This record gives sequence, structure tokens and C-alpha cells, in this order.
Amino acid sequence: MGVENHTSLLNNINSPADLRKLKEEQLPQVCAELRNFIIESLSQNPGHFASSLGTVELTVALHYVFDTPTDKVVWDVGHQAYGHKIITGRRERFHTNRKLGGLKPFPSPDESEYDAFVAGHASNSISAALGLAVAAEKLQRDEKIVAVIGDGAMSGGLAFEGLNNVSSTPNNLLIILNDNNMSIDKSVGGMSQLLISMHSSHLYNKIRYKTARMLTKIGLLNQQRAKSLTRFNNGLKAMLFKQQNIFEGMCTRYFGPIDGHDVRELVRMLKLVKDMRGPKMLHIHTIKGKGYKPAEKNATLWHQPGLFDAETGERIVSNDKVPRFQDVFGETLLEIAQQNPNVVGITPAMPSGCSMNILGKEMPDRFFDVGIAEGHAVTFAAGLAKGGAMPFCNIYSSFMQRGYDNIIHDAALQRVNMVLCLDRAGIVGEDGPTHHGAFDLACLRPIPNITIASPYDEHELRRLMYTAQQPDMGTFVIRYPRGKGSLSDWRCPLEKIEVGKGRCIKDGDDIALLTLGPIGKKMQRVVEQASEQGISVAHYDMRFLKPIDQEILHAIGKKFNKIVTIEDACVTGGLGSAVVEFMAANDYTPTIRCIGIPDKFVEHGTTDELYKICGMDSDTVLDTIVKLK
Amino acid sequence: MGVENHTSLLNNINSPADLRKLKEEQLPQVCAELRNFIIESLSQNPGHFASSLGTVELTVALHYVFDTPTDKVVWDVGHQAYGHKIITGRRERFHTNRKLGGLKPFPSPDESEYDAFVAGHASNSISAALGLAVAAEKLQRDEKIVAVIGDGAMSGGLAFEGLNNVSSTPNNLLIILNDNNMSIDKSVGGMSQLLISMHSSHLYNKIRYKTARMLTKIGLLNQQRAKSLTRFNNGLKAMLFKQQNIFEGMCTRYFGPIDGHDVRELVRMLKLVKDMRGPKMLHIHTIKGKGYKPAEKNATLWHQPGLFDAETGERIVSNDKVPRFQDVFGETLLEIAQQNPNVVGITPAMPSGCSMNILGKEMPDRFFDVGIAEGHAVTFAAGLAKGGAMPFCNIYSSFMQRGYDNIIHDAALQRVNMVLCLDRAGIVGEDGPTHHGAFDLACLRPIPNITIASPYDEHELRRLMYTAQQPDMGTFVIRYPRGKGSLSDWRCPLEKIEVGKGRCIKDGDDIALLTLGPIGKKMQRVVEQASEQGISVAHYDMRFLKPIDQEILHAIGKKFNKIVTIEDACVTGGLGSAVVEFMAANDYTPTIRCIGIPDKFVEHGTTDELYKICGMDSDTVLDTIVKLK
Repeated sequence: MGVENHTSLLNNINSPADLRKLKEEQLPQVCAELRNFIIESLSQNPGHFASSLGTVELTVALHYVFDTPTDKVVWDVGHQAYGHKIITGRRERFHTNRKLGGLKPFPSPDESEYDAFVAGHASNSISAALGLAVAAEKLQRDEKIVAVIGDGAMSGGLAFEGLNNVSSTPNNLLIILNDNNMSIDKSVGGMSQLLISMHSSHLYNKIRYKTARMLTKIGLLNQQRAKSLTRFNNGLKAMLFKQQNIFEGMCTRYFGPIDGHDVRELVRMLKLVKDMRGPKMLHIHTIKGKGYKPAEKNATLWHQPGLFDAETGERIVSNDKVPRFQDVFGETLLEIAQQNPNVVGITPAMPSGCSMNILGKEMPDRFFDVGIAEGHAVTFAAGLAKGGAMPFCNIYSSFMQRGYDNIIHDAALQRVNMVLCLDRAGIVGEDGPTHHGAFDLACLRPIPNITIASPYDEHELRRLMYTAQQPDMGTFVIRYPRGKGSLSDWRCPLEKIEVGKGRCIKDGDDIALLTLGPIGKKMQRVVEQASEQGISVAHYDMRFLKPIDQEILHAIGKKFNKIVTIEDACVTGGLGSAVVEFMAANDYTPTIRCIGIPDKFVEHGTTDELYKICGMDSDTVLDTIVKLK
Repeated sequence: MGVENHTSLLNNINSPADLRKLKEEQLPQVCAELRNFIIESLSQNPGHFASSLGTVELTVALHYVFDTPTDKVVWDVGHQAYGHKIITGRRERFHTNRKLGGLKPFPSPDESEYDAFVAGHASNSISAALGLAVAAEKLQRDEKIVAVIGDGAMSGGLAFEGLNNVSSTPNNLLIILNDNNMSIDKSVGGMSQLLISMHSSHLYNKIRYKTARMLTKIGLLNQQRAKSLTRFNNGLKAMLFKQQNIFEGMCTRYFGPIDGHDVRELVRMLKLVKDMRGPKMLHIHTIKGKGYKPAEKNATLWHQPGLFDAETGERIVSNDKVPRFQDVFGETLLEIAQQNPNVVGITPAMPSGCSMNILGKEMPDRFFDVGIAEGHAVTFAAGLAKGGAMPFCNIYSSFMQRGYDNIIHDAALQRVNMVLCLDRAGIVGEDGPTHHGAFDLACLRPIPNITIASPYDEHELRRLMYTAQQPDMGTFVIRYPRGKGSLSDWRCPLEKIEVGKGRCIKDGDDIALLTLGPIGKKMQRVVEQASEQGISVAHYDMRFLKPIDQEILHAIGKKFNKIVTIEDACVTGGLGSAVVEFMAANDYTPTIRCIGIPDKFVEHGTTDELYKICGMDSDTVLDTIVKLK
């Protein structure tokens, strides 16, 4: 596979300062070594793969040209930043990447002074870097700020909002558009060389900049215009009347596109634009998975490939028969869509992650991948629903936070009939604090008109999905975790569940255990163990957080004076709070212990490790039960 | 003021069907009558004013050309839709607009079949209308869908996300860009006539459309490109390589700009584009406040002018000496900024609403109005903070929902030192369910690392603001309501408050009353009244929801077996929940009654009326206290 083991230069790079001691002609070798290091490491310690291969040359060029960490690079979604970690003093710890206590999965200022800003959710880099750049300007610090944003992240509204504000105040931000989704277009290739030489000519830029400034000044004389400058005018509107490139329309000088795998060309361009005043954008073309043929061929598969043989390119896939909740969601959605012609699927850029690609393959005209645009996904789904369709919108729980207002304002307020499936709810493991789906229950529970459910197992997921698309169900949220379920035989008849009804899994006399979601299933063994110790635990699967089953709660309030709740979500505001509130409101006075994600940002590690850290593992729950007895 | 009273045509328009019976040459008169009706009505029954004057001709033309309600118009932010209400059967009830039980403040499908979608928060119209348009296409209904979006709303990321997806699937959406922020630019005016005749030529469009389709097909043959089509490519990227208008770049045919006050020209254009297949945009220029000179001169002041004399144009302003919380915020921010050179202010398009314009006027270089872009406002502020500035970001509570993820991911996770002031928190009165700041406490409380506070009165607001910008305070949220405070002498020394410390307002023995925010002040009289009835109420102003004052809560848990909490926020998830959780976790078993906004979307009315409806008024609280005793 062409994997070589030269690391003679890389081994001596313990910080970007070391890199900057090298000659420019040595940089291609540094890149080759860095690429090999990434391939070797990732084959043994799984993580994001293809993206970081695509940014090898950019990473080297940036740290070579810019004086990091005084100058700052803000990476948009950190899975492209492994090379950055490796050459900023973390090479020797890189084998701990994504492991408990090891390197963090995404750039984090807590970990390194070279990580300028958190980079877990897409599209935030321009806004964040603009803040850094404006602060540097105001506080008169000589710092260069660079934002590196992928073309995928550019579809997020936040990136647009950032771009629309880039020129509203003096700053020297450099935005690098890392464009890897599309190979260089022929018509583009044709004009690119001309554009490059033209745009990067100092004289040309000088003239253009002066002209632009003059025009702005004239515009500013008009009071009406001045007011609108920070708004639309200062961005989109400029576009309407100038037949030019969008970034120029945003008053941002544009350079490129250039080949993002030519490290010396990158260095040349970065040196050229580095000291230019004002905001500017450099557009580079890269190939996701560059330098590793299997990944170049199928970047989606190799985005996060798991273990693989670096020599043969063979992925090491386990043959476990228990499916993931994602598979069950995807297959069941297709089944339901076959029965109900109004069903459509919407996902913001996660068709394979959530398995909606199964629907997409079979019924492409009933499947909408709207790109990284969670807010739009929800509002678009609400529009579809108002138009008579029956949308299933699938968003990862932590990304749903981007669509929070849309759920309230565009869905729930109108009691729109749509299903919102929150994948990756609860602890997600190695992706860490930016990705744990911790807040969904707490932030959605106060919203009127909505139903919130979580399945105990795969059968329940199917039943909930089937129930949710029945007529007049309103906005129906179903949350479930990342990864494996518990049933190998998951296909069951599609049946309706009564909304707001929980169920008793096992009767008991001493303590009532109330659970929501698949974490409940994991508690079965705990209930047995408690029984072995002479503690009779009644186990209730609440199924619905909202409306919560008041009948069950009254029965529990009357019978038990000891209650334990457990949920795979932040303990503040979710099931535990609902139970505590209910008992207080109805003057029951049981002793209650609520278990869930504690009030801190939980780091990364395996899900089991993190459950233990959060006190959500079987041992801790058993311990809580025993102590309570 | 040129206000005439001809309503001979308007009086006979009880639905758009009546309008459509008229001849085109009668439409200017309808517009004149409609404009006068709006001026007369609004002078007597305050509401949004200037925006609806700007859309008179558009409204008439839309309902004249389109077959509403089968065809659907989605208004972006409903304050431009008064004319729409008046000619869709609500003229005779228009005097009840914004009043309790009367017409709703914004379009709402609950109120009229002519209101196609909720329209309270800006920038949602394109996504929503696209959903309606795609649904119509899929379900093979012959409906035309129109989205009307202002240029201000175009700066919102959601609008961009919608626009970026407009051409991703077959639909016939018409987007009307109601551009009123800037008068027609000379260079534009020069080319506009040419553009209009050119763009609206059927032949030209036919050729262009075919070419575009052909290019798309060629593109689709390439698998790599096909995948990226729904993403960036299908929008911004197209722009990079085509020297053309942004909307064309988004694969949306663009027409205009035309004069939005020429109703016959509007009718002509709408008829022309109405039956064209595929998404398209018509750009119109309008003047906010059109036809009413004082409003034309100062559209901001006349956005929502309150009562005024229609003849003289004189606004009827009360001379109450008690300031609004907004004034105190604005003045105090300036004071703090004068002391702390690092302080900067950021607001998404609400400088006068939140009074940050006071800072803007005195220190324009330390003030950032980022336009309607709540997510960017938060992330930009976080970037500024990481760069060493001390940002005060002010957002209305209900609009903050758009920046929820940014607060979690970009601010709290990094424990960024910034202040987030949530204006319009709690019940806001006449603006109704889209605008009540109900959810902030519940959705923010589970977020680790942040501080959440609410001032008892204006002095406390000043102290909290002063405290929040002390070093290393992390992400500090201060929420306060719309409107008047309680102190005429509000200037007090700026002093630091200990974070997480509440205070005892009045001691007592029978019942503990725990309050958060200015609603606590309103309860002083209730406490006195209870005392008159022989009930000794201890009153605690908690000040901080997070960290909550555990010392006070322990003291209360030990002393009282009866507790009442009250907050101007949804009762689920906020102060009441925090108190109930604390008591449960610490094995106190008092009887607790939690008062706050109930689990429903509260309609519009005066704040006092709505407090009563929510059971948050003095009488109900007293009643609760008496019953509990």
C-alpha cells in the first residue's frame, strides 16, 4: 500500500518551532512522514481517518508559515486536525488518542495552547476565529488568525452568519476553505491558474482594495446604507449587484482555488496572503483520504474506518449479530415508508451515520439529505408535515441543539405531526464532550405539545416509530443511543403503543426502579443481583418522559417509599426531575435517588468506562440500591 | 398627514376572493384604503407599524394573483402581515389585534387558513415554504407556495440553509425578497430595467433553464459530484465558479429588483413568474413606513411606535419616571465599559430593543450589531472572549433558543468568560407565544460550567452585571424581563455580589417563599397580605438559579415543611425543579408548590392578564399560600 516508515524528520519535530527550522524543500518529506504516521497509528488505534489525510500538507504549511501558537489556527470540526496534534507536541502521546485519559478526540484549548478553540460541532470556525481576530485588533496584539473550514461545514447557517459578518469590523482573518467534496472541475481548472496569479498579485490587490474602500466610503456617506451595512448589505446584498464570486461579495478577498496537496505552493500562497490587511479567503482543493488508495476511493467508509490492516487496506470488521440501533432505525423506516406513502426521511448530513441511507437507496425521492443544516432540517420537516407529508427527521442528539428553536417555534407550537429521531442520545464514548447527547431530555421536556419517548430495546424502537407516524400524534421525539442493542432477533410486528403508558418489567416490594431507554435493559441484571441480596426491586420502563405515565407514578407513590431513577442523560431536568416533581406535586414523600450524567462535561473514553465515571454502571446502581435499602 | 378615509373598496373585501373580483386598475385604490386603514387602526391600537405599511402593495398583489388559501403565502416574521390579516377576513376584528382573546400578533394557522405557517422568529420562511412546496409536489397537489422574506431576515443562518436547499429537489417555490433596508442603489437602478425585461422573457428563461438542466445532468454522471450535490455544491460552491448573482448560484432563478410599491407592476411580475416551474426569487424594493411620512423618516422608531395621533404624527409617550430594565442595562453597560477597557457589546439586530445602542453611540468601535444571527452572536462573543475581550452579548430570551448549541459548545464547554444577557425573559405580553421567554432557565440549567442569575430589581441588575465581568467568572447568564422595573432611583454603586448567594428578604416561620428575579419583588405585597391573615412567610430572593444557594436551601429544608417557589419561566425545569431536586437529594420532605408558566404555549395579552392566566399573579399566589397553610 505504499506505506513507508521514514520518520527521520518527523521524529525531531516536537513543536512547530522545530518544523520552522527546516528548509522548504524538506517539507514534502515531512508530509510523507506525517501521512505514514497517521496511517500507521490509525490502523492500530481507530479514529477519524480520511479527513486528516486530506489536510496533511495544509497542516504542515500552516505551522511552517504562521507563528503558532501566537498565531492561531481554528479548525472547523476537529477530525481533520490529527496532523495538527502530531506536530504540536503530541506525537508521542498520539497512541492514546480518543482513549480514556488520553488525547482528546477534537482540538481543545484545555489540552494544548495550539488548540485555539473547541472544534466538535461543524461550522463554528469562522465566527470563533472572527472573534479572535477582532479581539487581536482591538487589543492591538500582532496575531494572525486562521480558520480552516471544510466545504461540508460551509452549508451550516452558522458559517454563513460568520461569513456575513467577516468584513463588518476591521480584522485580518484568513479563512481557508478546505474543499474536498468535489474534485477540481474542468472549467475551474481552466481558469484557476490565471486567477491565482492575478489574485495574488500585490498590485492587483492593492488597486482592488483601494477601490473597495472608496466605494464603501461613498456608501457610508448615505445614512440609510450605513445602518444596513452590518446586516444583509454587508454580505449577500452586495452580491446581488456585483457579478462576482460570493466571498468577494461578502467583502472578503478571495484567492484560489489551488492544489491543497502541493505543500510548497501552499507555503508560497500563505506567505503571500499572511500579512495582507483585512479579511481574506484561500480556497484549496484536497482529496479526502489522500495518499491511501482505499480511503481515496471511498472516503465515506474511511471517514472513521475502525481497525484496519495498513498494508492490505483490509478493514477489521466484527461479525457480531446483534444489530445497532441505527440499523434497526434504518430498516424500520423503510418498512414503515413502504406501508405509509406519506412518510419521508430528512437528515442533516448523517445518512450513513443514522442509516437513513437505506431509505435513500430504495426511495431516493422520499429521502432528503439537507447537508449540515440542523435548523433547516427541522423547519423543512415541519413544512413538509404542514403540507401533508409524514416526516421522520433524524439528527444526532447533540447536533439537535442547533435546531432547538426550530423544534419549539416551527414544530411544537403548531403541534406539527412529525417524528424527530435523536440518534447518539446519551453517552457516545470516544467522541467525547462535544458529542454526548446529554441535554435533549432536559431541554425538550419543558416544550408544550411534544411527546418524548425512548425505547427499552429494538422491538420498542420499532413500536415507537410505528406509533409516532399514526395520525395526529403531534411532534414526537424518539431518542436512542449510539451502537448495539440487545436483540439478535429484532424484527417484530409493527404495533402501536399507547402514548404516555409505561410498563412494569418486574414487580417488587422494597424499591421502585424507574428507567427510560435502553439503559433500563442493562439494569435487568442489577435487579436480579439485588434480589440475590434479598432486596425486592420493582422495575418500571417508563417509555415516555412526556407525557409521563401518571398512573404508574401514583401507584409507585402509594406503594414505595424508596425510588431510584436512571437515565442515560444529564440528571438535571430529565426523568429524575420529572419523578421528583411529580412526587412533590402529589405530596408523596419517598426517598428518591436520581442517577444520570452528572453536572459536568463528561470526557471521552469507552461508553462502559464513562458509565462508570458517571455512576451509571451496574455496580454503582446496585450499590445505590443496597445503600437505600 | 394625507390620511384619507376612503374605504369603499376595502369595506367589501371580506376575503381574497372579493379582492380578485376587482379590476387591476382598482388595485391602487385598494392599496390606498388598506394603508389608511392600517394607519388609523394602529394609531388607536398599538402594534407593529412601519413593516406592514411597506408591504401593502405586495399583500394586495399576492392575494390578487394567487389563489389563496389553496396557494399559500408564508410570511417571514409576521409583523409585516397586518395587511394580509385585514384582507383575509379579519378586518372587522382587527381592532382586537394583540389583545387578550383577540387577533394573534403574528400569523398563525390556528387563527386562519390563510396563515400557512407560524411566523414569529425571523428567517424560517424559506425552509418552511420549501417543505410546503416539496410536499405539494410529492402529493401532486396543484398549489403555489410563496415565501416573503425581508432583507433583514436574510442574514439569519436558517434563511441561508433554506436557500442552499431550495433547488435540491423539484418544487415550484417562489421567494419574494422584500428589501426595505436600503433605497435603490443608483448602479442597480441603472441595470434593473434591463434585467427585468431580460429575466422575465420566457424565451430567455427557457434557454437558460435547459442549459442548467443539461449541465446538472452531466454533473450527475460523476458519482463523486452527485453525492456532494445536496451539500455545498448545490449552493455556495456553484457560485465560486460562475460569475453571477448569488441566487442564481443557488440554482434559483432571479427576477428584479422591481418597485414594491407599484401594485400593477407587482401583479404583472407575479403573473409572469407564477406558473414557471422550479424555484425562483423575485426581488422587490419597498420602503418601511411607506405612505406615512414620519415612519418613512425613522422606520426604527416607527417599527412599533405605540399610540400616536394619526393626523399629526405625534407619538403619545408616557412620562413615567420608573425606567425599563432595558434602560438600566444600556446605561450600566456603558458605565462598566468606561471602567473596563476590555468590555465590548454584541447584539443580534436588537440594539435599540435592548438599549445597547447607548454603548453603540458612545463607543461605536466596541459595539457589534451582527444582524439577525443569534448563533453567530454567541460564538463570535466566545471568540472575542478567548481573545481577551470581555463580551456582553444581549439576546432576547426566546431568540436565544437559536443559539442554544453555541452556548453549550462554544461558550460553556470552554468555560469562556463572557456575559450573556437575556432580555425579554418570562412573559412578554402582547407579542405572544413565539416571544415569551419561557424556556431559558430550563434549557440552560443542565449546562455545566455556567452561572445563571436573575435580578430582583434594577440595583441587582447593576450588581449582577458588574459581578459578571469580574475575572474568571466563566459563562455568566443574566435574565430579566421586558419593561418597567420598580425603582425610580436606580443608580446605585456598582458592587460585586458573591456568586451563588441568595438573600433573605424577610424572615418568617410558617412558609418559605423562594423567588427568582423581579417577580420576587412583586411578591412583597403578597407576603404582607399573608401576614395580615396571620401567616408568617419567609421570603428568599434566590438570585442565582445556578449555582443555587445550598446554604439557604439547607436552612429552609431544616426549618420549613412548607415551601412555595415562584419564577417567571416555565415551571418545568427551572427554580421549582431545582428546589424539589435539592430537597429530594437531601432527604428533606417538605410540601412544595411550584408556580411558573404552565406546560402550554401561553397566548398574547397584557402581562398582567397573562400572569393571571398562568396563576402567577398576586391573588393566586396568596391563595396558594393560604391553602398550603
